[in-house]
Amino acid sequence: MEFTLKQIASLINGTIEGNPDLLVQHFVKIEENTPGGITFLANLKYEPYFYKTQASAVIVSNGFEPKKAIDAALIRVENPEVAVATLLKEYEKFTQKIRIGIEQPSLVGASTTYGNDVYIGAFAHIGEHCKIGNNVKIYPQVWIDDNVVIGDNSIIHAGAKIYKKTIIGQNCVLFANVVVGGDGFGFARSQNGIYERTPQLGNVVIEDHVSIGSNSTIDRATLSNESTIIRRGVKIDNLVQIAHNVEIGRNSVIAAQAGIAGSTKIGEECRFGGQVGIAGHIKVANRTEAGGQTGITSSVEEPGLKLNGTPHMKIKDNLRSLAIFRRLPALEKKIASLEKLLKDILDTK
Amino acid sequence: MEFTLKQIASLINGTIEGNPDLLVQHFVKIEENTPGGITFLANLKYEPYFYKTQASAVIVSNGFEPKKAIDAALIRVENPEVAVATLLKEYEKFTQKIRIGIEQPSLVGASTTYGNDVYIGAFAHIGEHCKIGNNVKIYPQVWIDDNVVIGDNSIIHAGAKIYKKTIIGQNCVLFANVVVGGDGFGFARSQNGIYERTPQLGNVVIEDHVSIGSNSTIDRATLSNESTIIRRGVKIDNLVQIAHNVEIGRNSVIAAQAGIAGSTKIGEECRFGGQVGIAGHIKVANRTEAGGQTGITSSVEEPGLKLNGTPHMKIKDNLRSLAIFRRLPALEKKIASLEKLLKDILDTK
Amino acid sequence: MEFTLKQIASLINGTIEGNPDLLVQHFVKIEENTPGGITFLANLKYEPYFYKTQASAVIVSNGFEPKKAIDAALIRVENPEVAVATLLKEYEKFTQKIRIGIEQPSLVGASTTYGNDVYIGAFAHIGEHCKIGNNVKIYPQVWIDDNVVIGDNSIIHAGAKIYKKTIIGQNCVLFANVVVGGDGFGFARSQNGIYERTPQLGNVVIEDHVSIGSNSTIDRATLSNESTIIRRGVKIDNLVQIAHNVEIGRNSVIAAQAGIAGSTKIGEECRFGGQVGIAGHIKVANRTEAGGQTGITSSVEEPGLKLNGTPHMKIKDNLRSLAIFRRLPALEKKIASLEKLLKDILDTK
Repeated sequence: MEFTLKQIASLINGTIEGNPDLLVQHFVKIEENTPGGITFLANLKYEPYFYKTQASAVIVSNGFEPKKAIDAALIRVENPEVAVATLLKEYEKFTQKIRIGIEQPSLVGASTTYGNDVYIGAFAHIGEHCKIGNNVKIYPQVWIDDNVVIGDNSIIHAGAKIYKKTIIGQNCVLFANVVVGGDGFGFARSQNGIYERTPQLGNVVIEDHVSIGSNSTIDRATLSNESTIIRRGVKIDNLVQIAHNVEIGRNSVIAAQAGIAGSTKIGEECRFGGQVGIAGHIKVANRTEAGGQTGITSSVEEPGLKLNGTPHMKIKDNLRSLAIFRRLPALEKKIASLEKLLKDILDTK
Repeated sequence: MEFTLKQIASLINGTIEGNPDLLVQHFVKIEENTPGGITFLANLKYEPYFYKTQASAVIVSNGFEPKKAIDAALIRVENPEVAVATLLKEYEKFTQKIRIGIEQPSLVGASTTYGNDVYIGAFAHIGEHCKIGNNVKIYPQVWIDDNVVIGDNSIIHAGAKIYKKTIIGQNCVLFANVVVGGDGFGFARSQNGIYERTPQLGNVVIEDHVSIGSNSTIDRATLSNESTIIRRGVKIDNLVQIAHNVEIGRNSVIAAQAGIAGSTKIGEECRFGGQVGIAGHIKVANRTEAGGQTGITSSVEEPGLKLNGTPHMKIKDNLRSLAIFRRLPALEKKIASLEKLLKDILDTK
Repeated sequence: MEFTLKQIASLINGTIEGNPDLLVQHFVKIEENTPGGITFLANLKYEPYFYKTQASAVIVSNGFEPKKAIDAALIRVENPEVAVATLLKEYEKFTQKIRIGIEQPSLVGASTTYGNDVYIGAFAHIGEHCKIGNNVKIYPQVWIDDNVVIGDNSIIHAGAKIYKKTIIGQNCVLFANVVVGGDGFGFARSQNGIYERTPQLGNVVIEDHVSIGSNSTIDRATLSNESTIIRRGVKIDNLVQIAHNVEIGRNSVIAAQAGIAGSTKIGEECRFGGQVGIAGHIKVANRTEAGGQTGITSSVEEPGLKLNGTPHMKIKDNLRSLAIFRRLPALEKKIASLEKLLKDILDTK
């Protein structure tokens, strides 16, 4: 596929500095410095690569002022990162297979309804009283229990399992082998040490524009009037665990292998690194950020903090303590020598 | 659905203080203070909510003495938590779909036998020489290899995969996409740095009343006379890894994303938080508890310890050290000022 | 099954010391000391068990010199560990079911080709333009998208999901419910805090002799000319996350629940323990080893280091600091007493 800079600029609302009829065929990363194609400069730490680029064109921000001229044409946009995502989406449309129709064999409950342009792959098993919107794509080997609602344009990838009463909004993506709505991990301990399962009668509600990575698990809430809630725009990576009765605020982002224990409420626009663990029954304020492997063990009241370590600390404090942790052996020696000096002073008195 | 207090009390062996014909329709949490319904007071830290409750009835323990009277009726029971689990189970029975029969298309080996009231969902694939008990429910897209045994009343949720020779007891639940009996992670390193797979010829034995959460993995043992063993009553959450030749003692509870490395023996009634990691080839004593993200790196001999941190420490010791870790920068400053003072003393001598 | 020592020795290129016609039936572990069978001594820390063994025969290394004679026959080989893996493989061959043919119902795209002795299980769904080599085994409920290549002798276990354009080499094993080629976790943040998905147009390349454990996830690369690459001989355990654009060097070994963030390059012959986390956009040198739960947060330039802790340190340094961490309360007390002594000195001056 080939596009002119003019075509590209019109897609991303950009201004061309150079030849609008120039043809480009593929995207390259600015730091890789491959000849030809179109590249972009979003993060200014990559600016040195800009001056050496062999690409035919570079997407830059409106405000960017090059320190010297380069051979490549420029396309100026408001936000290069968003522009690139837009372009890649256009490219993806061209290369993407359109799936429509019901493959056989598959099982769909007689009372289940679905909209236009739906795809249901072979070996999918869908229960009764489900409502499936327009343009929903359900891939092979998906299992959906009764009374599930899936909004328009949502995609359920191969092998995902969705338990009863789950509500999924519009434009959501659940990747392969995701499990939504499994039993919360709730047991009552009887006198003899045996754990009796507490029935989990609630559901999971996933709002619009949510993405859930492969093999992640989201448990349903305990009581019948309760929900585990993933708010609009939340992005969840692979192998993430969300326990029963958790609520995750709008546009929060959770990296792979993180886990959130039961009944915890996460604020909006939070960002959690990989393998972060968050204790149960706490609240985490809006815009909290946590580095990889952080353990958030108690409520975070102040919004916008950057956290690190287990148990969590403000990242600046944590890094200071960690720096000293590294030189503890030297510190211990120093204390020993102070002790000795002091003993000498006392002895000679 | 509506129940009288009399009906409820008879289910949980309770004594009513109030009108036995009062009707309630749903469960509520005492801290949520919604009007109507029935609630319960199990953990006394919620006692303040008891005095403000708008619920119609409250389940309390026999010994509970309210500090002031409330409008709601009371039902007194031995253990409110267990009573609630019992009630929720009754409620669940009413709302649960009963699945019986063999859906088509599905494949079941000709030599495989199964009991009464079995459900086998469409797209399930069951091998030869399996023995499936009464009232077993096998959901769609499950794969079961040859020579697997599943005891009465066990439930294998959608997409679970069970390798050959696995033995599963009665009243077990394996949630969606669980994998039981995959190859242990065993390789022999040859001179040239290449790893050759060591065949894994053992199996997995899961005793009665075991629960295994979605997307968890349990590997089979290495030698043909060995088993990875999950003892009676063990409860395992989602995304947990149990390696080959591990044994987990009765009634132990393992939270999400925890992992246990090969050949480790876990005692009875242990409780491990989320993301706990346990090294291979060690023993962990009965009733050991470990906080989230703890790394147990060597054997724990003494039963009943509460552990925290990586490598694990007794939680009290760990919290003490962590408290000082947080003020290491201040401690370092103090040492520097002591050093200076001492230098001054020595200089002025 | 029974084998003579002669048969066994010929399989593993060994020399017999004892009766070559002796029959053995099963493998036992030397530390378990069960009577009969054949055992082996690979790790010399088990040597004490050698002198008490009740096994009929022991496989030992050519160089091993027993400190006293034992009743058992010996088979001497170059590398006992590799010899045992070879024997177990032979044993496995006898006990393994050979699966050949296309089970129905299954769906295979008309343009997809496959070699001899292929197995495709029921409820598998394979797209168009795939190339499947000789002797490839694809188990039930596998989903393979378009344009996937799978080399000779590779095995795709039940429920695995493989996205389009993935290339898998020869003699690979993907265990149950693995997901290869899902979307990388890439989003562009727009002004209003909403994350827009960045299309992920690359693929995953898995070279020969790679093993990937159950429920692990490997994401595809971002740009259409990029790949996430798993080099020859890499062994990956269960529930491991490999993000987009990662490259893992030859013969590296990654234990369960470890995770590697985007664009990171891992060297050859690295070994990572369980739950290790590795940050994105870094390089980790050849032969790096990391203990369980280590967090590698920045590039590791020097090859062959052994690391531990979060953030990672050389293991020796980490253990020294950890030892002092454990006695921080005592250290703090000592500092307090030094302070007091010093104050006394100054006061009495």
